[in-house]
Amino acid sequence: MIRQELINPKSIVVVGASNNVQKPGGKILKNIIDHKYNGQLFVVNPGSDIVQGIKSYPSVDELPDKIDLAILAIASHLCPDAVDTLANKKGVKAFIIISAGFAEESKEGAMLEHRIVDTINSVNGSLIGPNCTGVFNTNYAGIFTTPIPEPNPHGCDFITASGATGVFIVDLCIVRGLPFSSIYSVGNSAQLGVEDILEYMDETFDPLTSSKVKLLYMENVKKPQKLLKHAQSLISKGCKIAAIKSGYSEAGSRAAASHTGAMITADIGVDALFKKAGIVRCYGRDDLVTVASIFMHKELTGKRLAIITHAGGPAVMLTDALSHSNIEIPPLKGEKAQELLSYLFPGSSVNNPIDFLATGTAEQLGIILDYCENEFDDIDGMVVIFGSPGLFPIFDVYNVLHEKMLTCKKPIYPILPCEIEVGEEVKDFISKGHVRFPDEVLFARGLISVFNTPKPQLNITLPEVDKNTIRNIINNSNDGFLPPAMVSQLLDAAGIPRAKEIVVSDIKEIDNALREISYPLVMKVVGPIHKTDVGGVVLNVETKEQLLSEFERLMKIQDAKGVLLQPMLSGLELFIGGKKEGDFGHIVTAGLGGIFVEVLKDIQTALSPITFDEALTMIHNLKGYKLIKGVRGSKGVDENVFANIIQRVSALMTIAPEIAEMDINPLLGNGSNIIAVDVRINIVKH
Amino acid sequence: MIRQELINPKSIVVVGASNNVQKPGGKILKNIIDHKYNGQLFVVNPGSDIVQGIKSYPSVDELPDKIDLAILAIASHLCPDAVDTLANKKGVKAFIIISAGFAEESKEGAMLEHRIVDTINSVNGSLIGPNCTGVFNTNYAGIFTTPIPEPNPHGCDFITASGATGVFIVDLCIVRGLPFSSIYSVGNSAQLGVEDILEYMDETFDPLTSSKVKLLYMENVKKPQKLLKHAQSLISKGCKIAAIKSGYSEAGSRAAASHTGAMITADIGVDALFKKAGIVRCYGRDDLVTVASIFMHKELTGKRLAIITHAGGPAVMLTDALSHSNIEIPPLKGEKAQELLSYLFPGSSVNNPIDFLATGTAEQLGIILDYCENEFDDIDGMVVIFGSPGLFPIFDVYNVLHEKMLTCKKPIYPILPCEIEVGEEVKDFISKGHVRFPDEVLFARGLISVFNTPKPQLNITLPEVDKNTIRNIINNSNDGFLPPAMVSQLLDAAGIPRAKEIVVSDIKEIDNALREISYPLVMKVVGPIHKTDVGGVVLNVETKEQLLSEFERLMKIQDAKGVLLQPMLSGLELFIGGKKEGDFGHIVTAGLGGIFVEVLKDIQTALSPITFDEALTMIHNLKGYKLIKGVRGSKGVDENVFANIIQRVSALMTIAPEIAEMDINPLLGNGSNIIAVDVRINIVKH
Repeated sequence: MIRQELINPKSIVVVGASNNVQKPGGKILKNIIDHKYNGQLFVVNPGSDIVQGIKSYPSVDELPDKIDLAILAIASHLCPDAVDTLANKKGVKAFIIISAGFAEESKEGAMLEHRIVDTINSVNGSLIGPNCTGVFNTNYAGIFTTPIPEPNPHGCDFITASGATGVFIVDLCIVRGLPFSSIYSVGNSAQLGVEDILEYMDETFDPLTSSKVKLLYMENVKKPQKLLKHAQSLISKGCKIAAIKSGYSEAGSRAAASHTGAMITADIGVDALFKKAGIVRCYGRDDLVTVASIFMHKELTGKRLAIITHAGGPAVMLTDALSHSNIEIPPLKGEKAQELLSYLFPGSSVNNPIDFLATGTAEQLGIILDYCENEFDDIDGMVVIFGSPGLFPIFDVYNVLHEKMLTCKKPIYPILPCEIEVGEEVKDFISKGHVRFPDEVLFARGLISVFNTPKPQLNITLPEVDKNTIRNIINNSNDGFLPPAMVSQLLDAAGIPRAKEIVVSDIKEIDNALREISYPLVMKVVGPIHKTDVGGVVLNVETKEQLLSEFERLMKIQDAKGVLLQPMLSGLELFIGGKKEGDFGHIVTAGLGGIFVEVLKDIQTALSPITFDEALTMIHNLKGYKLIKGVRGSKGVDENVFANIIQRVSALMTIAPEIAEMDINPLLGNGSNIIAVDVRINIVKH
Repeated sequence: MIRQELINPKSIVVVGASNNVQKPGGKILKNIIDHKYNGQLFVVNPGSDIVQGIKSYPSVDELPDKIDLAILAIASHLCPDAVDTLANKKGVKAFIIISAGFAEESKEGAMLEHRIVDTINSVNGSLIGPNCTGVFNTNYAGIFTTPIPEPNPHGCDFITASGATGVFIVDLCIVRGLPFSSIYSVGNSAQLGVEDILEYMDETFDPLTSSKVKLLYMENVKKPQKLLKHAQSLISKGCKIAAIKSGYSEAGSRAAASHTGAMITADIGVDALFKKAGIVRCYGRDDLVTVASIFMHKELTGKRLAIITHAGGPAVMLTDALSHSNIEIPPLKGEKAQELLSYLFPGSSVNNPIDFLATGTAEQLGIILDYCENEFDDIDGMVVIFGSPGLFPIFDVYNVLHEKMLTCKKPIYPILPCEIEVGEEVKDFISKGHVRFPDEVLFARGLISVFNTPKPQLNITLPEVDKNTIRNIINNSNDGFLPPAMVSQLLDAAGIPRAKEIVVSDIKEIDNALREISYPLVMKVVGPIHKTDVGGVVLNVETKEQLLSEFERLMKIQDAKGVLLQPMLSGLELFIGGKKEGDFGHIVTAGLGGIFVEVLKDIQTALSPITFDEALTMIHNLKGYKLIKGVRGSKGVDENVFANIIQRVSALMTIAPEIAEMDINPLLGNGSNIIAVDVRINIVKH
């Protein structure tokens, strides 16, 4: 749906442009002119003949045919007719509507918006907006806000669902030195949304010329599968993506809904989707810009950093901040370390942090970086912290940093803590294409989130399951909870080990049942859904006398159709759940039962279909993981078997998308013997 | 030990000053002159007659008598003699030594440092440094680094143990608009350290003229009790204190040790001390400056904020960031809210966040702030987010903000997201005495840590315990673990409920014992410390036959002196511990037993003596708190009784400081019946 006329228009008309550059229509024309658009420019404004030096047409009807792109900055109620004329009479195919007063404001506005979309769809056109700030790329600055960055094809591509938030993020990026390749403000996303722009970037991706860094600001995820597909694809092509999805809390979600009419999307789905896609999730502007700045550096391929500093304090704070992560600051020892030390002033330390003192020189920094690059094999990247107490200029230091950043294969992250006394040096450093990290602790938090975001796995192999049987059972089932026999068949078809069980509906069948399972037993009423609430579960039945008397009692419970007999099992209580979350698909949950889920909410989630590694990661991230490993003599649970069962639940739901919800709780684990004890599966067919 | 000559010197000599302002000695003189010091200035430099326009003496011997303050910027090995002459012959009482090359570098340096301190102590003098950047206050700029803020008596007092870190923090403060009253760089703290400066600020505190905001950067806490006392005292006088104690992780602690020779202090003590003192703990420069900026505003006396914005996105992110805290963004409803809405443009929202749109005006902002101040009783403070898309200047908006910040009784926190297009407006706003918060999410994190730091409680009432009995037992005990009988007596004297127990050392005593306690029983060998490891604990003894045979077995264990009999109790497993952490005193720990402590490290700590509120807060902050409240029908544990027992442990250790360590584990709780089952107390007398 994204046309070249939108991306690289040979001609643009700004409808509603004026000489008043304090208004969006005037400002967007000024920005297009100022940023040296080299196509043809047209203006529609009934009140002037010439606007900002450009001939103005009194109405869209007077315009020449086949202008590539129309930017509308007129009152919302005037837009549908203007779009109609432009699309149907003038052959315009691409539109940016910056005007507000549409779906975000009222029902009437939503109707105007619908009409516009219908018109543009009917000519296979593209629409950005309405209620947006516009589009900026290397071809034109079709955006009414400032500041506008210098376009750089290797800068960031930034897609934002909030125009003002976009401005604030761009402002911070420019201050830090982050370049931009494009900015798309999608506003109400009436036709094209964040996901569609990303799809376009994926489909037109060129490894040589395309930007490798994508930044997203979203308040809802309307097309989760499209986002997942293209984010995974772009990342697999070498891109890096960071995104804010705001409104993740209930209160924030309400705030977002009142602000943009955004739907409330369950954050559990967003989180699972980002993890699966390999998108680094950010929670604020500084956070996003820090992560984007990390993206602009060479890739950190290992987890071992050298911290190089002329000031001890920040290095200590950085070491602290990285201490609860997987990133390591390995001590540097041995001959080479001693050799390096000999180049530094007395009192310096090469333990890592490498502290070359307040008196440390540019030359020493160069030597340290060379040693880290060439001599220390257990170092994967370097962080350099260098500010100034204001005694003399430090251009020489930042120049060494610049040169080594170009030549070293390992990434070098520059923490430049000072603004006031070394403003010129920082400006010069940034002008050479670098980014400034002002704070070591905020840098560490960003680096940890980049490092902890898994790479997407494109080819997911699920365990083999009996697809035909599963489809047969589902096809023959009705909406609602499946009866126990069908649940058992489904589990067997999916290869999920389950407790042996026999349903007895007549007291005469008990003797037969006892030939197959032995005491102690568990008895559960069949029929009622909430068995515990109606006293329908009896544990630890050890004698026939007890078995018979409980059977009679259970069969008297309302809706009782029979009694299920199971051996009484013991082991570590686990659970696996699955739930369909609208267009996100199935979210699989797993964890430890009992207080872990009830008190500690110790639940891990992933978006189905799930790889074995994803299942293992879920298990490893549980707070109670030590119990699975085994504590104090208990042998725990084989995590590979548990992960396999999680994958089998995912496989089952992939083949049976009609499963709206399923719960295996508990699943009892003893070493590699993990057995589903109680399972509920709810079917919803549409 | 801090003399007026250091704080407000009538005369200063800079020993080692030169015309080279790229060196510390030259720069510190320049800074003193540039910042309009109005006392007498002297210089010692053997190579020049005039230095920076000031007469220079060839040596300290030639100086006139009774100069108030000497600043030394000469090689470390020259310092001891110079100090000797100045202190003993010239009557100088206050010293700042900025030279490095002392204890931080070598043993020889440490000896030089010792000699200097001895000399200065012998004349009751004051010493700042060595290895520091100096002192800045409203009287003089005796600091060699820049930037130097404009002195403001109501700005921050900042004490830093790292000169360079201090520079970086000051730089950021100036950029954000934070004013300073004083900066002390204590360097090696050879005589005066962070705690001593804070003591001075406490003892000379004047509610009218003294600064109310203290910022600390520390890499170790040498004098914890002094820090606690004066931080509590200052806060009780209306001050606010924020501090970074870096080196909190093991790796960070090693980094700090190699940087300053700082001792490794257990972070558990630092954390408990900060909580008790009411110090807001910060973890990075941006964090500290954000908290300091919050301190500069009126106090937020309640937890309900209004978020006022012209851009939806940041308000959503801010709402998200506050959502897991105690701070609320209550919806605004009713007549007054509707009235307010009528002043705003169509599409605005007053739900809270109050979004008055990108087109919102300064006048509207004023009206909104007036409503929040005067009409909405359920609002305790306001956050205003206002940047600019660059269309026109926004001086009018920031002026309204400025005026309302002066007149409103509720705090107004300004989030100003833009730097580039509204740089002049931001500069103007800051010049009026305000602070800029650039990022709403970082602001939220700072506000949460301020809000979550408890106020210090100065008068701690501990539960009444039998002091004489406790002292008698302790006085009659030896180093090592106390025998069970003495433990029981101590618990009884401290009012800590314990399981009934009888020690039997002869099989003939068993019948007598059975008259006092009944089956089921627990049997524990007396003598060996690690009873479980030697098979010395038997649970659930139900018959006399079992009792007798186990007795015989237990008495054969090495070191067995008897067997302790207790009733077998059940209940929620809790624990309380106490440990002496050097000069920090006793740290009390409490939590839930079993997997909570073993797997989840769910432990809360506090510095003894502990108030009832502190004990309750410990309980409330446990991850497993829901189990204490009672889940799924279990009645849980009476938290007031648990808190009282925590306090009694604290009281016991306060009276018996010889207790190096004690453990009550488990403590079994059933409702208000909480009973110590297994208790170990280790005595170390010095």
